[in-house]
Amino acid sequence: MSEFSKKKMQKAIHLSLKSITKGGGPFGAVIVKDGKEIASGYNQVTTKNDPTAHAEVTAIRKAAKKLKKFDLSGCEIYTSCEPCPMCLSAIYWARIDKIYYANTKADAKSIGFDDSFIYDQLKLPQDKRIIPVIKMMRNEAIKAFERWENKEDKMKY
Amino acid sequence: MSEFSKKKMQKAIHLSLKSITKGGGPFGAVIVKDGKEIASGYNQVTTKNDPTAHAEVTAIRKAAKKLKKFDLSGCEIYTSCEPCPMCLSAIYWARIDKIYYANTKADAKSIGFDDSFIYDQLKLPQDKRIIPVIKMMRNEAIKAFERWENKEDKMKY
Repeated sequence: MSEFSKKKMQKAIHLSLKSITKGGGPFGAVIVKDGKEIASGYNQVTTKNDPTAHAEVTAIRKAAKKLKKFDLSGCEIYTSCEPCPMCLSAIYWARIDKIYYANTKADAKSIGFDDSFIYDQLKLPQDKRIIPVIKMMRNEAIKAFERWENKEDKMKY
Repeated sequence: MSEFSKKKMQKAIHLSLKSITKGGGPFGAVIVKDGKEIASGYNQVTTKNDPTAHAEVTAIRKAAKKLKKFDLSGCEIYTSCEPCPMCLSAIYWARIDKIYYANTKADAKSIGFDDSFIYDQLKLPQDKRIIPVIKMMRNEAIKAFERWENKEDKMKY
């Protein structure tokens, strides 16, 4: 493990502790690129009334804003806890290259966070999940996809 | 299907079309509670340089801000496309009661969106996924979880 990696994970851990003092959940994250820190974040779900404001999502938003790009290829993320499925998916959408984490989703479960439960739910077929899902009006909605498909100057992501 | 449901899905579809004209991806979402619309959103990934700004996440953020709560129990979401794993996980974290959707993740795949790919990645064990994952420094990070566990006035979510 390089000194750089250690320092960045130490910062993510520091942020996870800071988050607790601010009234948020115990999670922190740091995003780096080419050996430089681009952005960091900590959990702000309860403090900002934003259920999506996990540490990783917060850091991704900040990094993308700073780099003025929605594609974070070339970036790596240090997170104090194994990403939940929302954050892991956000990392995929952001095209981040590598993930470093410290605490595990089992650790998160043991202090009352739902990460493992949501991972399990995602693996289930729709009709076995706890949140009911209803499919409707595909015939109308598909028109937007057709329009997208036929748009010549579309910005893909 | 109720008239109310139809109208709300029509609005989500309308937003998916509007999003294209604004330069974003073809996705829209509406959140309702007790028969009233609370918030809506459309895809702003490319227009806001935010890889997490999918329609559902955008609508969730707005609804939580409006209701001044991170817990959206009692709310339902209408989305023009089956939620990707990031948005589905966000829906779980937000404790939304029910999901209505129109286009499918297969439809999304057919016009070039990675939803299905990410669903498949999440099902794999860590060492089989395309993004490398490195575990480190759990002994230091776990201190934040212990501190959280011992905090008496913590705000759970």
